[in-house]
Amino acid sequence: MTLYMNLAELLGARIEQGLYRPGERLPSVRSLSLEHGVSLSTVQQAYRQLEDNGLVAPRPKSGYFVTENRSLPALPAISRPAQRPVDISQWEQVLELVRASPHPDVIQLGRGMPDIESPTLKPLLRSLAQLSRRLDMPGLYYDNIHGNEALREQIARLTLDSGCNLGPGDLVVTTGCHEALSTSIRAVCEPGDIVAVDSPSFHGAMQTLKGLGMKALEIPTDPTTGISLEALELALEQWPIKLIQITPSCNNPLGYIMPEARKKALLTLAQRYDVAILEDDVYGDLAYTYPRPRTIKSFDEDGRVLLCSSFSKTLAPGLRVGWVAPGRYLERVLHMKYISTGSTACQPQLAIADFIAEGHYQPHLRRVRAQYQRARDQMSDWVTRYFPPGTRASRPQGGFMLWVELPESFDTLRLNRALLEQGVQIAVGSIFSASGKYRHCLRMNFATRATPEIEAAVRKVGETAYRLLAQDSDAG
Amino acid sequence: MTLYMNLAELLGARIEQGLYRPGERLPSVRSLSLEHGVSLSTVQQAYRQLEDNGLVAPRPKSGYFVTENRSLPALPAISRPAQRPVDISQWEQVLELVRASPHPDVIQLGRGMPDIESPTLKPLLRSLAQLSRRLDMPGLYYDNIHGNEALREQIARLTLDSGCNLGPGDLVVTTGCHEALSTSIRAVCEPGDIVAVDSPSFHGAMQTLKGLGMKALEIPTDPTTGISLEALELALEQWPIKLIQITPSCNNPLGYIMPEARKKALLTLAQRYDVAILEDDVYGDLAYTYPRPRTIKSFDEDGRVLLCSSFSKTLAPGLRVGWVAPGRYLERVLHMKYISTGSTACQPQLAIADFIAEGHYQPHLRRVRAQYQRARDQMSDWVTRYFPPGTRASRPQGGFMLWVELPESFDTLRLNRALLEQGVQIAVGSIFSASGKYRHCLRMNFATRATPEIEAAVRKVGETAYRLLAQDSDAG
Ligand SMILES: Cc1ncc(COP(=O)(O)O)c(C=O)c1O
Ligand SMILES: Cc1ncc(COP(=O)(O)O)c(C=O)c1O
Repeated sequence: MTLYMNLAELLGARIEQGLYRPGERLPSVRSLSLEHGVSLSTVQQAYRQLEDNGLVAPRPKSGYFVTENRSLPALPAISRPAQRPVDISQWEQVLELVRASPHPDVIQLGRGMPDIESPTLKPLLRSLAQLSRRLDMPGLYYDNIHGNEALREQIARLTLDSGCNLGPGDLVVTTGCHEALSTSIRAVCEPGDIVAVDSPSFHGAMQTLKGLGMKALEIPTDPTTGISLEALELALEQWPIKLIQITPSCNNPLGYIMPEARKKALLTLAQRYDVAILEDDVYGDLAYTYPRPRTIKSFDEDGRVLLCSSFSKTLAPGLRVGWVAPGRYLERVLHMKYISTGSTACQPQLAIADFIAEGHYQPHLRRVRAQYQRARDQMSDWVTRYFPPGTRASRPQGGFMLWVELPESFDTLRLNRALLEQGVQIAVGSIFSASGKYRHCLRMNFATRATPEIEAAVRKVGETAYRLLAQDSDAG
Repeated sequence: MTLYMNLAELLGARIEQGLYRPGERLPSVRSLSLEHGVSLSTVQQAYRQLEDNGLVAPRPKSGYFVTENRSLPALPAISRPAQRPVDISQWEQVLELVRASPHPDVIQLGRGMPDIESPTLKPLLRSLAQLSRRLDMPGLYYDNIHGNEALREQIARLTLDSGCNLGPGDLVVTTGCHEALSTSIRAVCEPGDIVAVDSPSFHGAMQTLKGLGMKALEIPTDPTTGISLEALELALEQWPIKLIQITPSCNNPLGYIMPEARKKALLTLAQRYDVAILEDDVYGDLAYTYPRPRTIKSFDEDGRVLLCSSFSKTLAPGLRVGWVAPGRYLERVLHMKYISTGSTACQPQLAIADFIAEGHYQPHLRRVRAQYQRARDQMSDWVTRYFPPGTRASRPQGGFMLWVELPESFDTLRLNRALLEQGVQIAVGSIFSASGKYRHCLRMNFATRATPEIEAAVRKVGETAYRLLAQDSDAG
């Protein structure tokens, strides 16, 4: 990462966090140059980058100011899910979403697809092609059950950035993060066990609990700081919880990053009540701030955290390469991995190992992170412009998803049906709850570059919501 | 398939089945030409092929005779497993086997690897390379949860050969047959349920039952006709069995093909007691006879058969592409597939779809089938030559595995340890039993071409067995 990008990210993060408020004057070029020990032109480049991102604006003769004219949608309130363990429903809605094949006539705002057209992915495709030409055909063998060793070495190196200290032997490669999640849950829990989850929460993880016969206890969650520790502690006192399952860094669907102090406090709670933590970090490397946030796993001393991730969001989901660092549950996870898929496809593993080893991963991340951050601002602006008044929206600190809350009585299932006729699909809110809450919410993807077609699609979502709301109030 | 190959396979099958006995004279060239409506030279070519395979020998002026000089090891007796449902053990031994990475200094006779060096696989690698160069990057997207449609169309077409009549919508693509098995078992059974299995039986399927908390009831199995229907019926009367799990065509580890009449009778039993059948057909396309055997699924009228397979044994296991035709359990299997891996890696699916669509699959099968049949004869000869007297061995009718039975008191775990020091590994018999039976048995792979190195390795196995037996009788 170049110096100016570093500085731009730092300043951007401070603005995001509200340290500099809209309309406030930012430090002068000279003072920043002194403070950070960089040249004046580096600071100027950083400011130009922030200007491109729409975060700051220059005023002649007075320097740079935080832009004022972005009126963001209000944040959703802290969630209020059911306060008891429930059986998970909503499979039909999830199936509808995952059954859809990419279709040229449908703009798919609903799925968790990253931008796979970034030129920084080219070396990965090159490496896949080269592997197919190698005479020793390394992609055709049964892999060892732990996964390819070269890949595990690279993953271990990457996790240093989130404060971990793992070796290849601590890792098991999986077929996507899905398999990391299901093997982990099965390694810790028995059917009937209670699992505490953040709420709203990734539908895949919730359906996994359903499929394995566990109950979910949804914990109130704040849209900027994550799972409520107070509510979690009450739940731990009241119920025999076996596992806490959360996505604390660049949460799906809310996009928050749980502050480090709260991550530590959560771990302390887990130790006190002797429960395991499943930490889903699949979006962690896509935090807009640099360095990326630490994982809970990085503070874990007794192996109770199972850290799950994949390259589906950072590189491409079709590769189906994920991994888990299961701590003290390693042997159990290996057994579950063996029965779930035997081993993971070889060629994608080898290609990713090459891609990282040759130094392509970090430049790729830098590029898409900046792109996603700009796209988030763009998407937030469109929501302000096109959605009914009173609409609330998350303020993601990483990743590429926006969570949108419409008035309480609204039904996004109905919205989605009306949208499908217009060639647009969203993810309905109810799939993010074990018990079908969040019917008035939806999630939109902003990974693809902001083309006029995407704007038109988002506009259709907003205008169709308007129309349905008007019908309701006419009817009522 | 050319006419002469067809005829050679037909005659070969009759010899295998004992319709022509060792030393017996075969029909004359002329009479076969009339009977099958082919030219004299076609019949001559067919006989030359059978001569190459070592099945027939010409005698001057008298025609062709079934070769006599092959003295085969005796067949194992019908198995006698425990007659009650048991919890599955043996995970440690399985782990030892699947933990091993390919190692240049170890000749691996233990794993289920096909020959991946066949030149008929070249188009598959070419197709993988081409996919990586395509600008629309079809390999990078999330696949639809059913799996790639083009691939499912090709699979549906292939299953016509086993008598099935399936459409793409009846199929779910999985990450290897492993995932087909585990999603199927989970779709039918709950923890604690009893599953009847053939015995000996594939360790992966057995460990799946273990991991999912089911009990296995091992049914006596004949080394040439498969699971004993009489014993199975008794078991069905006595226990609340939920599922019958078998590999009836080219069984692993025994290599038998269950006769068609017995397949039908098994289905009738399953209907009578209203249980589901999990039919593992992963080696079915590798039957030495042509046409390949029918599946039980092909007789199934009420959707109670879940047919599981993969391209791991016919093409290459590193691709991790399998499939299941779950009959009436389709919806449940889809849910289990979703939570197990979300979807299957795309690029290998697309490459296999191309490979089949372009007509490369059948020629490849023909080549490896003939190769495996020759290798089986070679391996059986080596066992006769190098193993202690009294050794019994299976007589596989397809696939590439030989099951070898040593004297009852023998311990193949000890043998395997002694062999590892000499750079050879076998699969120990105990992993093929839920309860650790078959300690005196082992399984060897004969997929790779019969090089002097392979012969030396098999010889080491035999001679080490001799040595250990001698030590035992000295000690005793
Ligand atoms: C939070 C979270 N975890 C896991 C996954 C699944 O990732 P993968 O595609 O690697 O299985 C997703 C994808 O949507 C996700 O959002
Ligand atoms: C009978 C049987 N079923 C299933 C499998 C697993 O196949 P896959 O590698 O496609 O998961 C094997 C592989 O050893 C097998 O022998």
